[in-house]
This record gives sequence, C-alpha cells and structure tokens, in this order.
Amino acid sequence: MAQREIELKRGLRDVYFESTESSLVIGDVGRLIYRGYEIHDLAEHASFEEVMHLMLVKHLPTRAELDAFNAELCQNREVPQGVLEIIERVKDGHPMDVLRTAISALAAFQPDVDDVSHEATLRKGMRITAQTPTIVAAHHRIRSGNAPIAPDPSLSHAANFLYMLLGERPDDETARLMDKDLIVHLDHGSNASSFAARVTASTLADVHGAIVTGLGTLKGPLHGGAAEGVMKMALEIGEVDNVDAYLAGKHERRERIMGFGHAVYRAEDPRARHLREGSRRLAERMGDPKWFQILSRVEEYMRPYAERGICVNVDFWAGSVYYLLGIPEDLFISIFAVARVPGYVAQVLEQQDKNMLIRPQMRYDGPIDLEFVPLDQRG
Amino acid sequence: MAQREIELKRGLRDVYFESTESSLVIGDVGRLIYRGYEIHDLAEHASFEEVMHLMLVKHLPTRAELDAFNAELCQNREVPQGVLEIIERVKDGHPMDVLRTAISALAAFQPDVDDVSHEATLRKGMRITAQTPTIVAAHHRIRSGNAPIAPDPSLSHAANFLYMLLGERPDDETARLMDKDLIVHLDHGSNASSFAARVTASTLADVHGAIVTGLGTLKGPLHGGAAEGVMKMALEIGEVDNVDAYLAGKHERRERIMGFGHAVYRAEDPRARHLREGSRRLAERMGDPKWFQILSRVEEYMRPYAERGICVNVDFWAGSVYYLLGIPEDLFISIFAVARVPGYVAQVLEQQDKNMLIRPQMRYDGPIDLEFVPLDQRG
Repeated sequence: MAQREIELKRGLRDVYFESTESSLVIGDVGRLIYRGYEIHDLAEHASFEEVMHLMLVKHLPTRAELDAFNAELCQNREVPQGVLEIIERVKDGHPMDVLRTAISALAAFQPDVDDVSHEATLRKGMRITAQTPTIVAAHHRIRSGNAPIAPDPSLSHAANFLYMLLGERPDDETARLMDKDLIVHLDHGSNASSFAARVTASTLADVHGAIVTGLGTLKGPLHGGAAEGVMKMALEIGEVDNVDAYLAGKHERRERIMGFGHAVYRAEDPRARHLREGSRRLAERMGDPKWFQILSRVEEYMRPYAERGICVNVDFWAGSVYYLLGIPEDLFISIFAVARVPGYVAQVLEQQDKNMLIRPQMRYDGPIDLEFVPLDQRG
Repeated sequence: MAQREIELKRGLRDVYFESTESSLVIGDVGRLIYRGYEIHDLAEHASFEEVMHLMLVKHLPTRAELDAFNAELCQNREVPQGVLEIIERVKDGHPMDVLRTAISALAAFQPDVDDVSHEATLRKGMRITAQTPTIVAAHHRIRSGNAPIAPDPSLSHAANFLYMLLGERPDDETARLMDKDLIVHLDHGSNASSFAARVTASTLADVHGAIVTGLGTLKGPLHGGAAEGVMKMALEIGEVDNVDAYLAGKHERRERIMGFGHAVYRAEDPRARHLREGSRRLAERMGDPKWFQILSRVEEYMRPYAERGICVNVDFWAGSVYYLLGIPEDLFISIFAVARVPGYVAQVLEQQDKNMLIRPQMRYDGPIDLEFVPLDQRG
C-alpha cells in the first residue's frame, strides 16, 4: 500500500491496544471502577493500603492480609543514604525531575533489578511505592534547608507522607483526607503515563525503568500539571466577589478555565466530590473558608457548561486541598505521583503477565529517493 | 458498545499513530531511509555529525553549517561535577540504569528545562546528545577505578567517545567504524523506545523526560539487548569447527538463534552489511580473525532460513565489532543509546511540532458491580 493512503489514528484515541482488569472509566456517566468496585465505596470505606492491595494483589484484603501487606510497605519506606546524597545534588531541580532521578537511581541499589518475574516485579514495585513518599518529602526538606524526617512505621502511608513532608503528625481527619486523595488518584484506565510505563515494560525492561517512564510522562502539562493551575486561578481571583467578572473576562478572551473538562468524562468526574467535601471541611476547620467559597462560586458559574460535557474534574478540588494543607504548588504533581506509582506497578504486572511488544507504525510522508551530494559539493 | 465486543489491536502492530518525515523502514526489501537518503549512502559517505544534522535540522549541512553544528556539540560535551558525583554513587548499577539516572539528573542543571519550544528542545537535545558519550565513558572509567577522561574537542563524536571510554585515541579506521555504527543505529521508524519517548513528549513534558523514557525502554531485552546475546553465542561456540553442531543442537531444542530475524525486516537488515565489513577488517587488523570466522559460518549455516524471512540483523555484527574493540558486553546497549539519543530528539521535535496527546484505550474485561464488604467482614 502506498504510504499516503494509510489511515492515521492520530493520538490513538479510539484504538484499544490491550485488555485490562485493573480499572474502568465510564466517561458518559462519570463512573470510575477499580477491579469491580465503585470508586465511591473505596474512597468512603477503604484505606489507601486496602485499595493498593486490591490493585496489586487483585482482591480486597482480609485483616491478616492487610497487616502483612502493610508491614512489608512500612519496612521498605527508607531510602539508601546514596540516594539522599543524590537528592542533595539535584535539589534545585523541579520536584518531579528529582523524584524521577531518585527512583532511577534506586535501580543501582536493587540487586535483582533485571528480574521481570511477577513475584520480583510485585516485590520491587511495592518497595518503590513505599519509597516514593520518602523521596518527595526528603527532597522538600533538603531544599528548604531542613534534615529529612525518618518515616514513622506507626503511621499510615498517607499520614506518614504528610508527617515527613510537613514535620507534624496530621490529625485523623487530615490524614483521612490525604488517604482519600491517594485512593482516587491511584489508577485511571489507559492514562498517558500508565500507557507509557506499559510501552517500556513491553520490551521486558524492569519495573524501575517503567515507573521512571511513568513519572517523566506524568510531569507533562497535558497530564499531571492541572491542579497547580486551578489554585493559581483562585489566588488570581482573590475574593468571592471577583469570580463572575474574572470568568466573564476569561470567556470573552476564549481562555480555558482550569479544572473543567476531561478527555474522557462527559459528566462530573466521580473523583471530584470526595475532594470537594474534604476541601470544605478542611477550610472550615482551618478558619480559612475563602478559597472554598471562591472555588464553589467558580463551580456554580460554570454549571451551564455541564450540559455540553464540560464538567468539574478532580484537579479542581485537589489543588485547594493541597494548598490548605500548606503544600507548595510545585509539589502538587508529586502528590499525584505518590498515588499513581502503585497504579503503574499494577499495570506493569498486567502488561508483562501476557506481554506483547507495543510498537505501532508511523506513516512516512517524506521523500524516498534523494541523491546524496558529498559535503564539499553542497551549497 | 459492550466492552467485550471491542476489537483489540494488541501491541498496536498494524496501527499508524502519526505521520513522520524522519525515517522509513521498508521491511520486505530491506531498505532504511533517513529523510529521503538511503542508509548505504549515509554510512559510506557521510559522518555521524552530518547525519545528526540531517535528522535534527532536516537537511545535510554545508561545510559552514557542519562546522557550527560540530562546534556546538563539542562545547557541550562536559557534564556538571554534580552529575559525576551522582554517577559515583550509582556506579555498581547496570550501565543503562546509570545513564538513565545521569541524564535524568542533568535536568536539574538545565535552567530552561521546562521550555518545550522547538528552539529550546533542539538546543537542549543537542546538549544531551553531546553529553551522552561522556556519561557512558565516565561511568565505565569510574567503576573500573579510573578517573574520567575529559573530552577532546579535536576529535569527532565517535572518536572522542572511544577515547574517553578506552583511554586511547583510536586510529582513523577504527574511529570511522564507530562512526558508521552510530549512523546505522541513529533512527529506525517507530521503534519501541522512540515511540515511548513520543508518548512522554505528547503530554508536553520536556526533552530530558522524553529521552529518559527512551533509555528505560531501550534497555529491554526485546529491544536493545540483542547484540550482547550474539557475542555470548560466539564465545560459547568457541571454534569455527563447532558452529554446525552447536546450531544443529539449537534447532533440535527449538531455541532461538540470536542475531537473526526482525520485527520489520523480511530481507537482510540493511544495516548489517556495514558492520559485517567493519568486523572483517577489524578482525584482520587485530590478527584475531576467529570471531569473524565463527560468525561468518553461523551466517552461512542460517542462509536457508532467509527464504522464510529469517535474515541476519544489525545486532549480529555489531556485537563482534564492540567485542573486538575491547568494550565489555554490558556496555553494548549504551553504545546503541549514544547513537539513538539524537534520534529521540528528532522524534520529540516532530511530535511536539504538531502535537496530539497519545492516549489509546484498553478494553475492560473485569467485573463492574462488586459489592463492597467492610474489612472486618471479609474472610
């Protein structure tokens, strides 16, 4: 077939490259399912550790299974001194670049790094999952001129992350809010970074490499970078009374409103409600209701657009939660990464368990018979 | 549509996700074209620097253009002291893990790391291209207990790489052989690692992240890892007289013969001939013809399989070249990386110049309505 006649599937938008049992996004009705369970049940009634077990071991754990799973994670939270020294040397980089570098470096400290058996990938993947919050927190401490805080094995994954990052053990409600945030961000079908991680894994490269690919991809503004933008908008608006004029101006200039619309959802992003409620309560408890009020008014103003499928997405409320917790904006994608790393592990396991190399084609639109002219005759 | 009825395109093998003008592989007749030029013309008559210019700037350079291009590469060969210190800390890792970590770390030393304009990506991409051989060589020196050798700006990209790696300035014929090796490995259509780099770039992530993705993917045994296997086979065979019995045994046990067959080529891999001839001459000059003789006999023995499309590929001869040059086997993929990094840059530029997020779908084959059972009621 002549190249020019070949049909392109640009962006692969409607192409199904594989089957999965990990998660399902039903965009038109705004449902998200993890291995058969509605995201709302998991966000409201399960812990992040239970949901990680569901995704990695393929069923919700019994109490004994959960205790063993938890113990393995807690034992693996520390990172080698060499990796802390590496973080020190790249501390002025973007937190996602530092996280990517540190996780890449962990490969050198993992003796069975090239073992791609299911058992080894799960074990190494759980270890990286346990180490990710430690790296994010250690980098933030180091760049702020503070010593890293050692992980506290008595705290949950979410609570320990906030403790290492902010230096104080969070109260139960705050810890539970971060827990929910991690649950709703864990997996999301064939998102770009999980897909990229699968491409890496499909060459039978190891889980460290696949996660590094995922992190580099997550950093992109079209993927993980949106929560940052929403809070910047709220800060620009400044006061509830400014919302309508601000948004009218945006519409007039045909600028995008951050935190609305999604590649897949045509109804409200099912993850948004858990963070909206969390943001409201957090703002109340902190006596700082202004940002919640501003964002609520933005959401109300945008309601007519919901009919055209432009609905509030998860980033809209996530940013305000992180902001109220006192987390700097350039760490927002890193929090997403803390949640998504076990999602990468689940997808890498699934990919390699029935592997096929992922290698699509490109249509060549250039010339094919150019005559080579030697260097000194070109002009 | 019910999920189960959805047609899967597993591995995306016959799906065209984008158009390109960078390179074309014509598998059935064994042709490889870079921007309109036959690979044979480029391998025989151009330098790696000219071919990099062709791929990155989209035309073969005049002498003045080549001098300027070269000067920019030479000026950028050094890596920051901080990155050498990082290499020191991961020196026991696999060379590809170390290279991935060091290039990831370079992002922290690049002030405009997040600028994804064409100009910035080209400039940063050329810098990473210039630094890649320095990193590979510095790591090998450091792990061998030697100090890294500073780049020599009077040497070509290929000659300087061999000099920094092996500690001696290569003679012209050896330098030219490495030059050819880099030319034939630079680009290869929609190969898995370039595709992965494009997925990362399609989220508008930066060129450092995209190259890191490419390197993690290249490491996989189904992609960059084959040259190592061929030389291992030659060493196992040991003597020319053992070839036939060795291969007959392999066939009987239905084991794969390394260095034959390719996902795309049904005729001889057009890259193989340049390295075959180079391997022959190198072996002669070194007075060590045994490995060339063994591999020639393997190739002859396998000739009948060519009718079924199982032909010699580029890895078959590349491994013997590296071996004769005294390069350790675990560096073979890193040499591939030195050649392929500018290929990633060319593809990242092309992707972002007319970007569309690459995000295919997966068919969900799991359950969707599982009832959530609270932790203490599970058993």
